[in-house]
Amino acid sequence: MTDLLNNTLKMIRPLDEKAMNEARARQNLLTKPEGSLGRLEDLSIQIAGIQRKAIPEINHKAIITMAGDHGVVAEGVGNWPQEVTAQMVDNFLIGGAGINVMAKQAGARNIIVDIGIATEMKPHPKLISRKVAPGTGNIAAGTAMTPEQAVKAVETGIEIVNDEIARGLDIVGTGDMGIGNTTASSAICVVITGRNPSEVTGRGTGISDEQLEHKISIVEKALAVNRPDSSQPLDILAKVGGLEIGGLTGVILGSSAQRIPVVIDGFISGAAALIAVSLAPMCKDYLIASHVSAETGHHAMLEHMGLTPLLDLGLRLGEGTGAALGIFLCDTAVKVLSDMSTFAEAGVSESSEE
Amino acid sequence: MTDLLNNTLKMIRPLDEKAMNEARARQNLLTKPEGSLGRLEDLSIQIAGIQRKAIPEINHKAIITMAGDHGVVAEGVGNWPQEVTAQMVDNFLIGGAGINVMAKQAGARNIIVDIGIATEMKPHPKLISRKVAPGTGNIAAGTAMTPEQAVKAVETGIEIVNDEIARGLDIVGTGDMGIGNTTASSAICVVITGRNPSEVTGRGTGISDEQLEHKISIVEKALAVNRPDSSQPLDILAKVGGLEIGGLTGVILGSSAQRIPVVIDGFISGAAALIAVSLAPMCKDYLIASHVSAETGHHAMLEHMGLTPLLDLGLRLGEGTGAALGIFLCDTAVKVLSDMSTFAEAGVSESSEE
Repeated sequence: MTDLLNNTLKMIRPLDEKAMNEARARQNLLTKPEGSLGRLEDLSIQIAGIQRKAIPEINHKAIITMAGDHGVVAEGVGNWPQEVTAQMVDNFLIGGAGINVMAKQAGARNIIVDIGIATEMKPHPKLISRKVAPGTGNIAAGTAMTPEQAVKAVETGIEIVNDEIARGLDIVGTGDMGIGNTTASSAICVVITGRNPSEVTGRGTGISDEQLEHKISIVEKALAVNRPDSSQPLDILAKVGGLEIGGLTGVILGSSAQRIPVVIDGFISGAAALIAVSLAPMCKDYLIASHVSAETGHHAMLEHMGLTPLLDLGLRLGEGTGAALGIFLCDTAVKVLSDMSTFAEAGVSESSEE
Repeated sequence: MTDLLNNTLKMIRPLDEKAMNEARARQNLLTKPEGSLGRLEDLSIQIAGIQRKAIPEINHKAIITMAGDHGVVAEGVGNWPQEVTAQMVDNFLIGGAGINVMAKQAGARNIIVDIGIATEMKPHPKLISRKVAPGTGNIAAGTAMTPEQAVKAVETGIEIVNDEIARGLDIVGTGDMGIGNTTASSAICVVITGRNPSEVTGRGTGISDEQLEHKISIVEKALAVNRPDSSQPLDILAKVGGLEIGGLTGVILGSSAQRIPVVIDGFISGAAALIAVSLAPMCKDYLIASHVSAETGHHAMLEHMGLTPLLDLGLRLGEGTGAALGIFLCDTAVKVLSDMSTFAEAGVSESSEE
């Protein structure tokens, strides 16, 4: 492990209890029955603790979408050709994808990173080119990447989030693009949560029952071939992970180190979060689970981390689309805390309850 | 029943199947796996059917918050004095309440209506003064209002939504303010859903176990004293309802008649929706349930109407705050349908599945 990653891990500290207590006290002075905004109140208090501010602020929002390819597509784990990763990234760059529409709705800038696309991408002003490798190896036959590449992927994520912090960043969302990445994420989920492959391997972008059986067998094979050490998160990432998954792990760790709330998207972001939380358990408190995906296994990931999703809308697109909705909810939660009047300010009588 | 209400009921027609089919077909051409945006896709299709447009549009959004008082507060059903209704409306007018913050977040204008506040309100440019009566009667001792007042409350809601349509309205949210209105809503819920008072009477703004027992007994008493006819929705409204509940029933009916999607808020809006759907079952298709409230009984209301809530965040504030979040989701759903590129437009390869 190199200095950047090591130092980042050391910088992750507990949330600020004082700021949380002050935020909670203010929530109870606002012109509404105590607790009547439910999870929005909880969110505002969590974000106060993360930002170390009794009244947190969300002005600058970004969704970081990491793209990488997966050698395991050679095993026929899905129906989409590998070239779709690059094509969809081109689609992100011209603004035609789900994440473009939804990031705009949330008022978040979308940062698109080539951390491991197999195709050589044309330079584009909106594309951050940080290719660690042109895709991973086929995890059913060997490792996804070298240990050095795993560290480099995570550190790339840390560097990218640090660059974004320099541009102004109060909340970050994670997103992914990578044909084949549900297979890698299932493998990570099995190792870290201890569930069976059949419990946490799903249909990804849409496969038949027969294809699902095959996909489960590939996850089993990847684990049998690679034997990742469940106590070594970077070993898991290198052996059965993905470059975009490693990058997102870095985004989560880097954001947590810099006291930025991280809104995680679905199954792939969940795999990245599992690795991040295994490396630095305290970063769990910096995470906000935007939604529970329709992808089998996501629920198990969230449960393992002790995270309760905000939304359950049957989403399974990835890209950061669920995170965009989550960022909107966080922004709303924070604005409720900062902008509502107190009973005293508004001259409203209080409840007679004790 | 007078002409306005009668004509409004007759104008409520089935959704446009052709527009829905076209919207569904377009969803399947967009650059994402089929169905991968889950309920957002369903929402866009429903709104296409409501607006009669294959690609619906949401430019103008409003949340109509109706305020009224309840004579049943004399029975000590809650902890907040009646004056809080007027004080909170003043708070809406100066922009300090939850609905102000959350309507702004959703990009919706907030329409505040005095349809039955007990206090005489000072004129204010943002307050629509349409007082049908200065609060309802105590439903534990007699009727809430006369049959004529019930019709007038509903027609007031229709008129207000028609005025808003003239200003531009593509989606509407419902909201309420009225100390004591959970008691009236529970009574309506009992009559229409057939549940027991103890199943659908909740803690409102926050009461003790002992107070809850008392509140349930008051709901029972209101039903015993008034004996509303479960087959006559306007009879239920007049005997155990509320002026703001009647107004919201009118908003729902008027919007459905004019093909405007209606995002309903929590328990009080749910009571209004129960009456609207009883009067015109087809208006159910125009409804979008923003959330399931923490208030006991809301789930039973939604189940009775066959509505699945978008959110479950433990909200129980009312005012239209949940509707604001729902409007954001609807807006996002519609923008996904209109703004995403198709596979052909983006030059992305399609899945080999078939």
